[in-house]
Amino acid sequence: MNNFHFYSPTWFEFGKDAESKAGELVKRFGGGKVLIHYGGGSAVRSGLLARVKASLEAAGVGYVELGGVKPNPRSGLVYEGIELCRREQVDFILAVGGGSAIDSAKAIAAGAVYEGDFWDFYSGKRIEKALPVGTVLTISAAGSEGSPDSVITNENGMFKRGASGDAIRPRFSILNPALTQTLPPYQTACGVTDIMAHLYERYLTNTPEVEVTDRLIEALLLTMIHEAPRVIADPNNYEARANIMWAGMMAHNNACGVGRSQDWNSHNIEHELSALYDCAHGAGLAVTMPAVFTYVINHDVMRFAQVAVRVWGCQMDFVHPERTARAGIEALRAFLISIGMPKNFAELGAKEEDIPKLVDVLCNGDGRPGSISGFMTLNEEDCANIYRLML
Amino acid sequence: MNNFHFYSPTWFEFGKDAESKAGELVKRFGGGKVLIHYGGGSAVRSGLLARVKASLEAAGVGYVELGGVKPNPRSGLVYEGIELCRREQVDFILAVGGGSAIDSAKAIAAGAVYEGDFWDFYSGKRIEKALPVGTVLTISAAGSEGSPDSVITNENGMFKRGASGDAIRPRFSILNPALTQTLPPYQTACGVTDIMAHLYERYLTNTPEVEVTDRLIEALLLTMIHEAPRVIADPNNYEARANIMWAGMMAHNNACGVGRSQDWNSHNIEHELSALYDCAHGAGLAVTMPAVFTYVINHDVMRFAQVAVRVWGCQMDFVHPERTARAGIEALRAFLISIGMPKNFAELGAKEEDIPKLVDVLCNGDGRPGSISGFMTLNEEDCANIYRLML
Repeated sequence: MNNFHFYSPTWFEFGKDAESKAGELVKRFGGGKVLIHYGGGSAVRSGLLARVKASLEAAGVGYVELGGVKPNPRSGLVYEGIELCRREQVDFILAVGGGSAIDSAKAIAAGAVYEGDFWDFYSGKRIEKALPVGTVLTISAAGSEGSPDSVITNENGMFKRGASGDAIRPRFSILNPALTQTLPPYQTACGVTDIMAHLYERYLTNTPEVEVTDRLIEALLLTMIHEAPRVIADPNNYEARANIMWAGMMAHNNACGVGRSQDWNSHNIEHELSALYDCAHGAGLAVTMPAVFTYVINHDVMRFAQVAVRVWGCQMDFVHPERTARAGIEALRAFLISIGMPKNFAELGAKEEDIPKLVDVLCNGDGRPGSISGFMTLNEEDCANIYRLML
Repeated sequence: MNNFHFYSPTWFEFGKDAESKAGELVKRFGGGKVLIHYGGGSAVRSGLLARVKASLEAAGVGYVELGGVKPNPRSGLVYEGIELCRREQVDFILAVGGGSAIDSAKAIAAGAVYEGDFWDFYSGKRIEKALPVGTVLTISAAGSEGSPDSVITNENGMFKRGASGDAIRPRFSILNPALTQTLPPYQTACGVTDIMAHLYERYLTNTPEVEVTDRLIEALLLTMIHEAPRVIADPNNYEARANIMWAGMMAHNNACGVGRSQDWNSHNIEHELSALYDCAHGAGLAVTMPAVFTYVINHDVMRFAQVAVRVWGCQMDFVHPERTARAGIEALRAFLISIGMPKNFAELGAKEEDIPKLVDVLCNGDGRPGSISGFMTLNEEDCANIYRLML
């Protein structure tokens, strides 16, 4: 196991009606004037935004609002939020929504107290300081509610990049599984896929002897396999929603990823798809993951065999371990299709003729060295081959 | 799943030589004058204490010392520590050792800023305020390095009681697996048993539909089963030590226990044994757990069958699930014996004739209502029967 530090100081308020504590929590963590940052209609229509505002008012906390966050959140709105925070002397950002609203809120939080361009943080500069952030989560997916990470799409070129820093870990996150019950099955499945991708990206490691984190990752994958079909069949299944919600946070606060190298090539390869076609990140991952895993399987056959046996219940083929390894990837593919995810470029709305452009931005964009690295280093040819596996 | 909040703001510094960061971490978390609190010879002999002091000195942090913490830490030393902190105007407590040193440090931290008797907290009063605590862990066992809990033995009657509160969660914990390599196999096995008990106490729940925490607990149990025999065979196996160390923390910071009722009757029943005979807590648990589980098995046969199948690899007997349930308990018993743990009262140094006394203190001591509660409520007769199962 590698040396590491782990720090996850977020207060999680979990359960029915947890959003009624928003005001109390903002005050506990030092907020006096809040920017409520959210997406669009659903938080308004469902009455959630009104309940959050009522809670802030009851606690005597002032607020301004900025809605309009889109899936795959954009840099333009971040600049707007930063400007608003400075003008209104906001001292706390409260995201109401999913990963997009939270990631956008984190970018605003870091940018508001930084003199330069906030995009510096998405070009490799570590975030050391930010306004405190709180969240009211409405979709189990990104894990941003417990992570130090944020992903933003730069509108000047339409490419996605991530930033990171303990300063943008939420001070508190309100997790009410009932808030996710209104999500349609397709979006629910996209969230499930994203969570499973966070687990696979950590599972694909080159660090030996990491039994404890292997087992924790497998535990969370098994939870998703058990619970996802139940919420697809019945969106109002609170218990299944609750199990997925805690799994989604645990998948990405990194308690199961410490002390080991991680992959993140599937995310990198997918990010170009959702940036270019504006497809759902989870849908892109459903197409990307089986292709990437098939391409890199020989890098560590026994690792793929292990997840096949322990998670997917495959029988170990002791003579031909690669058959087991491959059966695990096929089981993942079949599972993702069974919950309604797309299986190829066509279903995603992606186009074969764009592959050279996708590969170029992926491997050379924003100062990258002609390749991406993780479980394996993948050059332009590798990435083109992987995109072709998705046709 | 029940509503809950989860808050684990401890900074974990994990890996080789991590103790060299003690000074820097104390400063980061606001310490100016430290009480170093430790047990006895081994921390001195190994040179660990000297390295910790050198790190504090290099960071310009002052300190006083209080050694002499015994296993099953006593109230007397806590009073002494509180007095010392007040006299020396200590503002940070640094525990160097295992659960005993850490629990004693937590008691001192709470008592130093409290006007009444610190024992109030061990009689049910919640700890709301305490001096900040840091730890340098030397044994994987109690999980106190990441928990809000502390257990102290009252010398006035020799009974053990616990106290709890977010204020005594360590601000940082230094986890260097190499520091545990000097532990003899018996103490290592006691630690392993304690960790497994923390997992079983959470597993035995009356809350339905808790797949995610069930799976996380199973993951950590599987890790212990995989790694414990390796460290017993080779105490210098750093990798196995590392996996156990992270599992031990995760077993008890409650990430795997949220939103569900828990048991803790095995701990309660054991506490009277280690308080009366001063045996190792882990050794007491090795004898206690199989007896308790055998006694309560019919309360939820399928839960015991689940852990038997998923953790112990038992074949499910679909006609007679209780056979599978029982096979899982026997597998646990055999495993604990295989790592060198005692199996009955005699090997523990406990005496049959003390059972009435043990039961009386257990069920009636310190204001208890003639029973203990958890997975099942156990009255005096139940507890006597359980102790007799250990003969």
